[in-house]
Amino acid sequence: MIIDGKALASELEAETKERVGELVALGRRPGLATIIVGENPASAMYVRIKHSACDRVGIRSENVNLHEDAGIEEIIETIRGLNEREDVNGILLQLPLPGNRDSAPAMAAIDPAKDVDGFHPVNMGSLLAGAERLVPCTPKGIVWALERLGVSLEGRETVIVGHSNVVGKPLAAMMLNRNATVSVCHVFTRNLAAHTRNAEVLVVAAGVPGLIKRDMVKPGAYVFDVGINRVEGKTVGDVEFDEVLKVAAAVTPVPGGVGPLTVSMLMSQTATATEMQEQINNR
Amino acid sequence: MIIDGKALASELEAETKERVGELVALGRRPGLATIIVGENPASAMYVRIKHSACDRVGIRSENVNLHEDAGIEEIIETIRGLNEREDVNGILLQLPLPGNRDSAPAMAAIDPAKDVDGFHPVNMGSLLAGAERLVPCTPKGIVWALERLGVSLEGRETVIVGHSNVVGKPLAAMMLNRNATVSVCHVFTRNLAAHTRNAEVLVVAAGVPGLIKRDMVKPGAYVFDVGINRVEGKTVGDVEFDEVLKVAAAVTPVPGGVGPLTVSMLMSQTATATEMQEQINNR
Repeated sequence: MIIDGKALASELEAETKERVGELVALGRRPGLATIIVGENPASAMYVRIKHSACDRVGIRSENVNLHEDAGIEEIIETIRGLNEREDVNGILLQLPLPGNRDSAPAMAAIDPAKDVDGFHPVNMGSLLAGAERLVPCTPKGIVWALERLGVSLEGRETVIVGHSNVVGKPLAAMMLNRNATVSVCHVFTRNLAAHTRNAEVLVVAAGVPGLIKRDMVKPGAYVFDVGINRVEGKTVGDVEFDEVLKVAAAVTPVPGGVGPLTVSMLMSQTATATEMQEQINNR
Repeated sequence: MIIDGKALASELEAETKERVGELVALGRRPGLATIIVGENPASAMYVRIKHSACDRVGIRSENVNLHEDAGIEEIIETIRGLNEREDVNGILLQLPLPGNRDSAPAMAAIDPAKDVDGFHPVNMGSLLAGAERLVPCTPKGIVWALERLGVSLEGRETVIVGHSNVVGKPLAAMMLNRNATVSVCHVFTRNLAAHTRNAEVLVVAAGVPGLIKRDMVKPGAYVFDVGINRVEGKTVGDVEFDEVLKVAAAVTPVPGGVGPLTVSMLMSQTATATEMQEQINNR
């Protein structure tokens, strides 16, 4: 089975649209502010995709484009201004920053209650401690999809390939919070196949095209491919899709798999942030 | 080999004592404040052990004993008072709270810069994101001991049994930050032995006496036993020590293994907290 990320994302968007409608009825239309630093075309494209999703579900969106040379202080000043604004419920700093500057100080400046990407230390810490609030969207989208597909995680053998702050580590925490058995492999792992062959749920976020081949996948596994690689003008994932599809129970394609799930989870979390802020204001 | 936790702890204490001496020379003797709620004899014993360690390394210590009926507000008020005091550099709320009340709101009230147990969400989040500051003492003690024993973690097959907030999950994050391959098993894991037999480093924090038997351990493994169980009047760990010692490269005994390492790491972190606060004040 091909896991249709677009169809699942549409389901999640429909649910989010209802929640947004309830907030609008209270006079609290959710607002998402994105920040792009510089002129990275990929960043511009990702932000356009997110704003389109906002339009579909009824979230107000705006973008702040800072100059490529903007220092970390200017980025933080921009974030503080957005923290103050009542009509901005979610703040997203599009990564990477130009010149691969460290984004951590800027991330920490975002009001944790508006941190719809879930990268603020307080939100990452609550995640690790099992009290999930706003969390990174890609792992949350995968966990949501598994639930929607009826794959329970308790006791499930799960293997994550990649140990980034954006996907691998937060996903491992989420899976453990749901009582899955979790193994995390990465570029330093010596026998990757021995681990992946044991996975009932396999999530690959390595950024290596064709890393996961058919003989590395357990028959009947659920495979999520987070990789987005450009190879000979085509966008491909980290999984040899056609071959792995022959043994797995289900595989996400690239594009059209994890990507749309991530965007729709960002919408859901913007609604969640707004609901949380509404409750705080009503106290 | 038996891993002599007391000897390793003495080494760490000696290093900490030097650092404390340098702080005292600056007129900044570190101070640790502990809080006990109620009259739990085990809590009283653990706190006594920690205060004795303070005495040995030159850290000033004090204890606040709140009544068993103290509400969460009173605990938080006590913490806020300690947050304000310049002569208190580390604050430790001894767990569990009576009646197994939720400690999370109290933990979150501790100034993250004084959070020597590393349980504040900001510190847990920094840990998950790979920017370790103050972190939970038991996992940090194990990682420190492995380094001291010359066991590099990069690419190492590590298995953790137990996924608690205090040991399993923070240790998994620390191991991943050091590029180990990490598997986390627990009570919901279906085939525990298949995982543990693959471990070059095995850390067991399950609270089940005798859980890990000889045939579950890879020859040449390093085994850390975090369990503390009372069986027929004796204190035992989660590992069948005598049997596992025959196949492993090294095993920690219980008592005298991970326990002393944890206490000496608390001393080290109290010195670290004081150094960090000193730098902040000198800015």
